[in-house]
Amino acid sequence: MEKINKNVLNHVITPRNPQSYKGNYGKILIIAGSTHFGGAAILCTSAAIHSGAGLVTLATTPEKFTAVNVQIPEAMTIDYTQKNELAQAIKSNDVIAIGPGLGTSSIAKGVVKAALNLTTEKQTLILDASALTIIAEQQLPLETKANIIMTPHQGEWQRLSHLPIHEQNEENNHKQLQKLNPNATLILKKHLSEIYYQDQALQIQAGNAGMATGGMGDTLTGIIAGFVGQFNYSLETISAALLIHSLIADKIYKENYVVLPSKIIAKLPKYMKKFNQAK
Amino acid sequence: MEKINKNVLNHVITPRNPQSYKGNYGKILIIAGSTHFGGAAILCTSAAIHSGAGLVTLATTPEKFTAVNVQIPEAMTIDYTQKNELAQAIKSNDVIAIGPGLGTSSIAKGVVKAALNLTTEKQTLILDASALTIIAEQQLPLETKANIIMTPHQGEWQRLSHLPIHEQNEENNHKQLQKLNPNATLILKKHLSEIYYQDQALQIQAGNAGMATGGMGDTLTGIIAGFVGQFNYSLETISAALLIHSLIADKIYKENYVVLPSKIIAKLPKYMKKFNQAK
Amino acid sequence: MEKINKNVLNHVITPRNPQSYKGNYGKILIIAGSTHFGGAAILCTSAAIHSGAGLVTLATTPEKFTAVNVQIPEAMTIDYTQKNELAQAIKSNDVIAIGPGLGTSSIAKGVVKAALNLTTEKQTLILDASALTIIAEQQLPLETKANIIMTPHQGEWQRLSHLPIHEQNEENNHKQLQKLNPNATLILKKHLSEIYYQDQALQIQAGNAGMATGGMGDTLTGIIAGFVGQFNYSLETISAALLIHSLIADKIYKENYVVLPSKIIAKLPKYMKKFNQAK
Amino acid sequence: MEKINKNVLNHVITPRNPQSYKGNYGKILIIAGSTHFGGAAILCTSAAIHSGAGLVTLATTPEKFTAVNVQIPEAMTIDYTQKNELAQAIKSNDVIAIGPGLGTSSIAKGVVKAALNLTTEKQTLILDASALTIIAEQQLPLETKANIIMTPHQGEWQRLSHLPIHEQNEENNHKQLQKLNPNATLILKKHLSEIYYQDQALQIQAGNAGMATGGMGDTLTGIIAGFVGQFNYSLETISAALLIHSLIADKIYKENYVVLPSKIIAKLPKYMKKFNQAK
Repeated sequence: MEKINKNVLNHVITPRNPQSYKGNYGKILIIAGSTHFGGAAILCTSAAIHSGAGLVTLATTPEKFTAVNVQIPEAMTIDYTQKNELAQAIKSNDVIAIGPGLGTSSIAKGVVKAALNLTTEKQTLILDASALTIIAEQQLPLETKANIIMTPHQGEWQRLSHLPIHEQNEENNHKQLQKLNPNATLILKKHLSEIYYQDQALQIQAGNAGMATGGMGDTLTGIIAGFVGQFNYSLETISAALLIHSLIADKIYKENYVVLPSKIIAKLPKYMKKFNQAK
Repeated sequence: MEKINKNVLNHVITPRNPQSYKGNYGKILIIAGSTHFGGAAILCTSAAIHSGAGLVTLATTPEKFTAVNVQIPEAMTIDYTQKNELAQAIKSNDVIAIGPGLGTSSIAKGVVKAALNLTTEKQTLILDASALTIIAEQQLPLETKANIIMTPHQGEWQRLSHLPIHEQNEENNHKQLQKLNPNATLILKKHLSEIYYQDQALQIQAGNAGMATGGMGDTLTGIIAGFVGQFNYSLETISAALLIHSLIADKIYKENYVVLPSKIIAKLPKYMKKFNQAK
Repeated sequence: MEKINKNVLNHVITPRNPQSYKGNYGKILIIAGSTHFGGAAILCTSAAIHSGAGLVTLATTPEKFTAVNVQIPEAMTIDYTQKNELAQAIKSNDVIAIGPGLGTSSIAKGVVKAALNLTTEKQTLILDASALTIIAEQQLPLETKANIIMTPHQGEWQRLSHLPIHEQNEENNHKQLQKLNPNATLILKKHLSEIYYQDQALQIQAGNAGMATGGMGDTLTGIIAGFVGQFNYSLETISAALLIHSLIADKIYKENYVVLPSKIIAKLPKYMKKFNQAK
Repeated sequence: MEKINKNVLNHVITPRNPQSYKGNYGKILIIAGSTHFGGAAILCTSAAIHSGAGLVTLATTPEKFTAVNVQIPEAMTIDYTQKNELAQAIKSNDVIAIGPGLGTSSIAKGVVKAALNLTTEKQTLILDASALTIIAEQQLPLETKANIIMTPHQGEWQRLSHLPIHEQNEENNHKQLQKLNPNATLILKKHLSEIYYQDQALQIQAGNAGMATGGMGDTLTGIIAGFVGQFNYSLETISAALLIHSLIADKIYKENYVVLPSKIIAKLPKYMKKFNQAK
């Protein structure tokens, strides 16, 4: 399998046009969080903002608004229990990322269905965590015309693809991904994560065991949303998002026994600038 | 159009009189925030405090008080749904800044009308964001005798002035501003923002594309409020506020791909000191 | 009037006994905060903890508990609207500081009366801000046998002492303080603040105009509470608390146009160590 | 009594296996906090996460969820007043730490009983603070087959063991610990804390008087939970947790008059890395 080349960061992270405005850097909707999993929503939203997204709205349960306002005053919020409000937001954003800390309540199920039903071809829909669990359990077809990105770990991929972990090889993964949605991108999270898109497969050459801590996947999802929102939907952009997450973690791991997600997020703006300037 | 000279910061940011007390540095009322836009209120209030305002009160919805207490313990709060309390606060503060994250609910409309009706000639009223939207939609006349500062981006200015963006030239902007209120100051936010006051027009020579992110305008409004509160209402003071916001952002942009508003705010006290010491 | 000598910090901030435990450093009760003034309570409590107090409890309105838990997880909380709970806390703490952000509601009045009525001779009662306003308005006699410290600014002292500001000279201040309570200490906050205790008067030779911002007095009250709690009730200790507050502010002011109270608080542990080591 | 050797940190803090995932670093349940003692729960949970625990859930009163989401977005939460939910969490985690800020309400008592009744032999149960008070008051037998760690200070140990402080010598402590539970570990917190396990006793040679401040014990409990969760239940691991807490505090104390628990927590990842790299 081909390795992700570090140069991808130089290609993807382009200098910004001086005449641009925040509308040029993507309207992102994060649908995440629930009573017991509030932090996941915060980490995901904060990662999207620190990666340079133009406008970020978090759809969550209203009891989390205070924590969001404190941690990320740059974010807007909506209440995902309000169906019309949520539908409107799904339709009007460029990138919708759903799943971190969402849980599997009946509200969460309705929210996932809304995202699958209401997105259209000019949008990107990122499916993560609880959203993947719900899709597997409810056997929801991925029939949206939006670009789909799925970010399961191996257990979640088993439930989605019906491939036991020992059968999750390149050929089988391609085959099952094609069945789920032929235009979707799969990020299979594991030691040396892999990306599958149509007939292509790439493997990361970064990451470390200090990343084995809660909130790490939520943070990756936010970075992918930010990158797709401001750059584009492409294998290269998604590879860059996956890679930068692990490269920053590797840097932190050199001096820390455990890599806390919030530290990765804080380092995004400076780390991105380095690649941007290297051109 | 004349450029804003960087020396304006040396003129405006004067050394403080050792015998002064907080009443000398302005009583500022920020009217901002609503259920879904809590962060805007926090950024605006925090910017006013970090720019040196003497006493800052945030009038907002009470559900945001906890986030405010955490993020800016130096601020006081009032509940803008309490009409008498709000009226009292509008009358007793020197500078009233209204709009960031306020939304366009009927409560927001009432609040904007109260600000326009209750301010008097010794006060400064800064109109931003949702307040400008409400004024345009409701065709509210700007009849207050207070000094008015408006901070629209180009789309908001179009709605206020009925000038399509391609007709927003120096002459037309002056003419329409005179019609709205002959003593008002207009900050037209765009790539190289412009300030209009009576027959004068100035353009900024700073700012960058990393500022294209949520919360940037809310932060500017807070800085303007802080500057007018502690210095005075003048073209020079307003130019200094606009300039310092972009100069700090330019400094951050040298090392960061995106410029988060909260980072600009944190740097205000140190950056202001440099200009103050340069004299 | 005699000046406060900087050596007082070396005398007061003694090295800690290795065998000591937190009970040796004072049990402090801060009674502060109300719906609209939550930040004052947080700043005061945080200052007490950062100055080295052993155990700090904040009695406030329960709606502020979340903000307190976030900003100062080291603090405990109680609900001052629960009379028995408050009475118990007043009786069982060594130092009670009352007033920052308390407001002048009927609840606040009851709370101030409880503090005056329930404190006894082994305790210290610090009266600040709203507590002083209530005492002046309600003409409450200072009949507690606790050691009293009052921290009015000039306007508050006028209301307490009936001395117009231009008559607030050394002789008159001594006289009026004796009438209020012959064992009380008065800190008169102004440019070059003064301390009065029995027949002694001291003046500070530090402080700056960057301190003219909201929350500065709340922070001083917290430091005094922390110092009296872990050292003792004496003119020397109170002078040290007043002085360290301004000396840290002077240090910050060298590089910042405005001195935010939260920055003074953060610097307390390091700054205190310097004096402690100088011996 | 034998001293804890600093080399224990090199033995315990092993390099992580690159192929590991967060399930390898322990599932930790912290049962802590109550209306008036929210900060204790936050400090304990944050310490567990910063020490490298894989997955950390805080069972607390729901009114504390917002503060937890802000301070530690990496943590999950559950509501300990929901009996079934709590029972499920107790059964499904590897390490259960109970007590910091829990209080002694009837709910707290039920929660402590649930922890004693529902834990089994593959788990570790850490009993601290309020949990120890409840066990002493209610004379609850320590009959769980889980590994038990108790962390009383001398007064709490007196209530548990019925040994007055002057009789708390090595022989008596061993004897009383055997009666309570022959497989339990006792950390007796005092100047130069001691650890008792079966016929072994160790004494720490670190710690300082700057640690005499609120929240210090809650932080230690979180570190022990994190260490047992990712390493193992052994005298060596528990000694390492106790030692690292004091060594970091000693480092902070060199430059600070008081050692705030939150500063110890922040330094955990870097300090642990040093020992890990020394091998």
